[in-house]
Amino acid sequence: MTLTLNSPLDMHLHVRDNDMLKTVAPLSSNSFASAIIMPNLVPPVTTIKALQEYKQRIIRSTCRDNFTPLMTLFFKSDYSYEFLKEAKKYIAALKLYPSGITTNSEGGVSSMDIDGLKDTFEAMSELEIPLLVHGETNGFVMDREKEFSSVYEQFAKNFPKLKIVMEHITTKHSASLLDKYENLYATITLHHLYITLDDVAGGMLSPHLFCKPIAKRPEDREALLKLALSANPKVMFGSDSAPHPQDKKECCGCAAGVFTAPIALQALAQLFERHGKLKNLQAFVSDNAQKIYNFKPIDKKVTLEKKEFIVPNSYGSVVPMFAGEKLLWSIKNAL
Amino acid sequence: MTLTLNSPLDMHLHVRDNDMLKTVAPLSSNSFASAIIMPNLVPPVTTIKALQEYKQRIIRSTCRDNFTPLMTLFFKSDYSYEFLKEAKKYIAALKLYPSGITTNSEGGVSSMDIDGLKDTFEAMSELEIPLLVHGETNGFVMDREKEFSSVYEQFAKNFPKLKIVMEHITTKHSASLLDKYENLYATITLHHLYITLDDVAGGMLSPHLFCKPIAKRPEDREALLKLALSANPKVMFGSDSAPHPQDKKECCGCAAGVFTAPIALQALAQLFERHGKLKNLQAFVSDNAQKIYNFKPIDKKVTLEKKEFIVPNSYGSVVPMFAGEKLLWSIKNAL
Repeated sequence: MTLTLNSPLDMHLHVRDNDMLKTVAPLSSNSFASAIIMPNLVPPVTTIKALQEYKQRIIRSTCRDNFTPLMTLFFKSDYSYEFLKEAKKYIAALKLYPSGITTNSEGGVSSMDIDGLKDTFEAMSELEIPLLVHGETNGFVMDREKEFSSVYEQFAKNFPKLKIVMEHITTKHSASLLDKYENLYATITLHHLYITLDDVAGGMLSPHLFCKPIAKRPEDREALLKLALSANPKVMFGSDSAPHPQDKKECCGCAAGVFTAPIALQALAQLFERHGKLKNLQAFVSDNAQKIYNFKPIDKKVTLEKKEFIVPNSYGSVVPMFAGEKLLWSIKNAL
Repeated sequence: MTLTLNSPLDMHLHVRDNDMLKTVAPLSSNSFASAIIMPNLVPPVTTIKALQEYKQRIIRSTCRDNFTPLMTLFFKSDYSYEFLKEAKKYIAALKLYPSGITTNSEGGVSSMDIDGLKDTFEAMSELEIPLLVHGETNGFVMDREKEFSSVYEQFAKNFPKLKIVMEHITTKHSASLLDKYENLYATITLHHLYITLDDVAGGMLSPHLFCKPIAKRPEDREALLKLALSANPKVMFGSDSAPHPQDKKECCGCAAGVFTAPIALQALAQLFERHGKLKNLQAFVSDNAQKIYNFKPIDKKVTLEKKEFIVPNSYGSVVPMFAGEKLLWSIKNAL
């Protein structure tokens, strides 16, 4: 049995820089036609020059000519209208991080007060630049995303023409917001469709499944599964694949992030098939995103086949999700 | 400023065996007059002979003559009345583990059905042997203790003369059971008075704070603090200090357990002082336990002084809680 996906897209991806970029970029370009690239480098990507240079480094690292990085700028509330108008030619979106909330987010926004963000949000609405948001407060780890929901609601209500993507949602409460506001969308990761906090800390502690937002409760995963499997048109696949070297994951005090890029499509096929929803995978990994972002990706056909795939123990210095385990689907070719 | 504690007791302690025993036993005997020793060795301690031999190994390892190990047997529902009557001479309690719920608990009880436990519980009631329980189900990690509460209630209701100790409680719900049943008691650890899940997985992942039961929510910690600081007569200090070698804590898939024995009294003094409750520490670390277990420990005075103590980065191969950090109290002497 085979399944051909047309132009699969990863709408939330970390490829880092330098040696790590060289390790992971070819793995994404092998499976996907395009990906939204996160701007949280050190320092963050905040200028068109830095963005163009980063894009070139990514393209050189992919080792292929059939993969398009879709670039984002790190959100700052002092970008001018003129700057954003010029930036619009080069970017797919702006990514907003609350300050200090995840890896390399220290320069992010420290107050979600609408007044301070109004000018930028209005410019983005007019220029049709989507706003991508890491939606967590600095509260108790299991409550951070739910606590942030009032911010999403304020943003959505006050800027009805702004397309807002709730990135890597993890709760049933976030899922419920999609029905409430026309201009709210969401990405969902692979790992949040598979795991709960039980997999991170229920048996032994599993550093390679530790991520932000942290995996939540069984009923939360169920709500995410329902959205993805039904190909709800407001959700897109975004892996949030976030590589860290093995020694930064298994040390005392490990960094947050699950590395899924090279195994994402195979694991998604397994999951969708298990639930009898293989026919909806195309919408989840590509069609929905094309409509939401209003863009046409390059034509690239990725064919999966139902054939065992033993996930490598590592890719370079990075340990992937399902390391050493068997997945039921593998990638046959990508043309 | 100094504070002298009379015969401080650790009512829940893991000292392991062999080399690890030699590392950790002197650390407990330095701070405490006595401790309840957990029986979850490999294989578990289920015979009087094994128990007596283990007790001798502990005594030899403490390197002191002013520390008494209070021994426990690993609960089995097929112990006869005659066996328990004989065992009573050597033990302080039986410890019940649901099967597979924590380190070395595979041989534990697989069903909490009252009928299968009745004979043993009745014998224990008559012989006045306390029942110590690791109260968790195998459900979702944040719900396991609360889910187990119906078992505690059944045990307490059906065996009103059995003294039942809910070991290392972590939730406000468990705290509320103490008021409801006269024959329910509890131990509380040091780490559950200090940390929540935020400290384990809210920032970086902290393997050395990963334990079972896992640390819960802020409101749960508040409820435990209230019990301990008020010297509620139904609660006792039990460190659940659980050493693992560093490489078993910082590897991929780390073992559960926080090592606190050598720093417990210092950190408790700091905590009780911060809340203006130093006068209640004596009850929490000794007097309550003497009444609940109806025993008189050896006379041992442990004097703490308010003097900075930098916690070592490790004791042998074991990393303690607060490694490398500063505590405000230190142990002056133990006589």
